[in-house]
Amino acid sequence: MTEPTLDIIAIGNAIVDVIARADDAFIEAEGIDKGSMRLVDTETAEGLYGRMAAGIEASGGSAANTVAGIAALGGKCAFIGQIADDQLGEVFAHDIRSLGVKFETAARAGDPPTARCLILVTPDAQRTMNTFLGASQFLPAAALDRELIASAAILYLEGYLWDPEQPRAAMRAAIDVARAAGRKVAFTLSDAFCISRHRDDFRALIDDGLLDILFANEGEILSLNETEDFDAAVDATAAKVPLLVVTRSEQGAIAVKEGQRYAVPAEPIDQIVDTTGAGDLFAAGFLAGQAQGRSVTDSLTMGAIAAAEVISHYGARPEADLKALVAARLG
Amino acid sequence: MTEPTLDIIAIGNAIVDVIARADDAFIEAEGIDKGSMRLVDTETAEGLYGRMAAGIEASGGSAANTVAGIAALGGKCAFIGQIADDQLGEVFAHDIRSLGVKFETAARAGDPPTARCLILVTPDAQRTMNTFLGASQFLPAAALDRELIASAAILYLEGYLWDPEQPRAAMRAAIDVARAAGRKVAFTLSDAFCISRHRDDFRALIDDGLLDILFANEGEILSLNETEDFDAAVDATAAKVPLLVVTRSEQGAIAVKEGQRYAVPAEPIDQIVDTTGAGDLFAAGFLAGQAQGRSVTDSLTMGAIAAAEVISHYGARPEADLKALVAARLG
Repeated sequence: MTEPTLDIIAIGNAIVDVIARADDAFIEAEGIDKGSMRLVDTETAEGLYGRMAAGIEASGGSAANTVAGIAALGGKCAFIGQIADDQLGEVFAHDIRSLGVKFETAARAGDPPTARCLILVTPDAQRTMNTFLGASQFLPAAALDRELIASAAILYLEGYLWDPEQPRAAMRAAIDVARAAGRKVAFTLSDAFCISRHRDDFRALIDDGLLDILFANEGEILSLNETEDFDAAVDATAAKVPLLVVTRSEQGAIAVKEGQRYAVPAEPIDQIVDTTGAGDLFAAGFLAGQAQGRSVTDSLTMGAIAAAEVISHYGARPEADLKALVAARLG
Repeated sequence: MTEPTLDIIAIGNAIVDVIARADDAFIEAEGIDKGSMRLVDTETAEGLYGRMAAGIEASGGSAANTVAGIAALGGKCAFIGQIADDQLGEVFAHDIRSLGVKFETAARAGDPPTARCLILVTPDAQRTMNTFLGASQFLPAAALDRELIASAAILYLEGYLWDPEQPRAAMRAAIDVARAAGRKVAFTLSDAFCISRHRDDFRALIDDGLLDILFANEGEILSLNETEDFDAAVDATAAKVPLLVVTRSEQGAIAVKEGQRYAVPAEPIDQIVDTTGAGDLFAAGFLAGQAQGRSVTDSLTMGAIAAAEVISHYGARPEADLKALVAARLG
């Protein structure tokens, strides 16, 4: 087994976010569950886009946000995801590469266009996401660079990408490659509704011992275990994965490793502007900490610092110097 | 002469801004004049984009920002500008329409793509703009809706659009339409370098009495008059235009109307994040005030309020509720 040359390689949706303000009445009139992510088809996406307010566009995608954060923290990362051969695809590729993330998945010609996520941010800073998967849902297993996957200490996968068939197969193939190379596999459950669509698959991944690190938020760990009892849910899942990380919004986050529970509070923040990317950046901070050989508690703190930064502005990628923020706190 | 049904119709570049942070060393290494706007060709734009940091995209364009601000303040506006039939063109059209601005210029098929402006924001919040004019430079006089122009109380033109030949001819034709309908013509000098390219033309517009309202900043009024003496420059130009508005950054702004000088201070602001759009939004506040029949001083104050809002965040379009900000101040 050779030494890994990359810290993290992630597979995820290659999405450009369109972020706009909306009030609660608009969300209700559109018949959307506030705070959730839903998949929309071209027609729904176009209709909603026509009705929503002016916004800004920024590169996004859950796992892509995470590697962007890890790279900002000094980690060596690569990303695999399907863009189309269009303007938004160029924007996505530019942004992730400019952060130093290796991204070489070839753009796909013709329709559908690059994925976009229409994100409505309500005055309470919650984000409601309407994802048009576009080209992202056509990531073929053939696009995987197996050598690159085998070269990374951790393979990181997003649950959202479990929805479309081709990327699901690609992620299963990637897990095999990583495990054969003796690498770790990390997975984020992404969203409670996503779990309700794929609970059996996600449970099977865990039961089969394919996941080394699992990320969830409170709603997700409850949904996975179909219970309302947080501690019972954490204990049940922690018994099956070597390292479980659960974020709890303003209550901070916990991790369970080999039966031992660790907890950190949320980082104080002046004003929450847009919670988009909070979970993604938490995972970034935690994984970057692990890659640097830090303790579980310090890795949790790095997650909390990165999450606090990203919710203080619009957009799901870090703007401030995360390395400096962590150095000021942990040295 | 019929009553106008629109407050303002603007003709300008239809641009999507790409906004990213850069340090002074990067600006210098690229050989760019910090704080200026330069026109770049496809090759330069692509090279610079490849080297610059990850950013966000937001609709922009000087005159378009101004009508976006006027609409946010309750004014009835229309915009004329050339987009291409592509994703960024759709973004531009969506954003300006979602603000209630009438925008019906047909998208142009084929190359070049929709204009974009690569904006580098340095730690001092200054913006350095690299504009790839793209489709914007092919706005033909035939695209003008003459009836619509004649229906607006004020025709507003941006100096930047004087660079390419077709839009320049279109703007000259629009001035004729507006004047024949008994409407006012407002013009912004846009940029000191723009004036150095077109000083004779701009002076001729003024000398021929074609402009009723002229907007400039300090550097522009000096450049127009080729002097270093601010008061002399203001007096010289004010003698030739019925209403002159000059913005002075942190020193506030002045206006000269019929020999009388008015001044307001800059609005206090916590933190300047990105000065992109400051002049555009000042013009928006001022013109909205004039459309509402307010005094010159109150119109200047509205300009200062709108400018202060836009420099407190990234992007050149207002994010806060400008109407509420003005109501809290002026009633």
